[in-house]
Amino acid sequence: MKHTLSVLVENQSGVLSRIAGLFSRRGYNIESLNVGATEDPTISRMTIVVNGDDAIIEQVEKQLNKLINVIKVKSIAPAELINRELILVKVSAGHKERGEISNITQIMGAHIIDISRATLTVEFCNTPEQIAILLSLLRPYNIRETIRTGTVAIEQGSTTIK
Amino acid sequence: MKHTLSVLVENQSGVLSRIAGLFSRRGYNIESLNVGATEDPTISRMTIVVNGDDAIIEQVEKQLNKLINVIKVKSIAPAELINRELILVKVSAGHKERGEISNITQIMGAHIIDISRATLTVEFCNTPEQIAILLSLLRPYNIRETIRTGTVAIEQGSTTIK
Repeated sequence: MKHTLSVLVENQSGVLSRIAGLFSRRGYNIESLNVGATEDPTISRMTIVVNGDDAIIEQVEKQLNKLINVIKVKSIAPAELINRELILVKVSAGHKERGEISNITQIMGAHIIDISRATLTVEFCNTPEQIAILLSLLRPYNIRETIRTGTVAIEQGSTTIK
Repeated sequence: MKHTLSVLVENQSGVLSRIAGLFSRRGYNIESLNVGATEDPTISRMTIVVNGDDAIIEQVEKQLNKLINVIKVKSIAPAELINRELILVKVSAGHKERGEISNITQIMGAHIIDISRATLTVEFCNTPEQIAILLSLLRPYNIRETIRTGTVAIEQGSTTIK
């Protein structure tokens, strides 16, 4: 089962290496990992999606809390979870395919952000499920490249992770 | 100066830890780092934004190429670079502020994805520059939380990084 952890860390060199090392040594299975800035330049936020049962996730949380430079670890309950991912897709498209791909992106709420004689580049920001649908629709046109950010998550309502 | 590296790595436990360790040991200054899936489940792509002059970036590229599990490293030239970041922002908003914030998000092309009595959550996917503008417009309303993916990058035109 997938669990989403939101982790606040001090923005110092070595933090990422320690956290990645912890996951690798213990053999935890990271589905995606993400580090981004916050409004406070001394603090970064990591979103980590881990596969495992509840016991494993509890262990991961404990281990993370023991690391120096880790300020706060929160496991987001599925019912409270809003998750999003950004994907850039470069797909083969000559003049014949442009209209079809343009229709798909419009219907899905994606955007074409670059065009060349032989390709289109599509930007899409949505849930992992919607991204899977877009990819399945674009695959027949030959996907040349995909760049994904990994999942980021926020809690519903006014709760914050601080 | 900021440089954007796109790195293909084997999707194995320990890769992230080795790469993060390299940056931390050598004291390279990572602006953002990002790991995501590709169409090939055995391969992940990392986008790393590093601060430094050309000599340092060349050194980083060489060191990365020496690591096992690193398949390909490419520094994307600024003129060819399309970069995007996804941000989720939870901002204080009662009934009086909702209209104003709704106007800002519409004008900027952002989306409101959650609402509570006291907050709105905004999703925005754009260049780092546009994201900075949105944040500056939302700051007066009291930003409670920001979650950012870090930058991902793709090259213009039909070139791919393979």
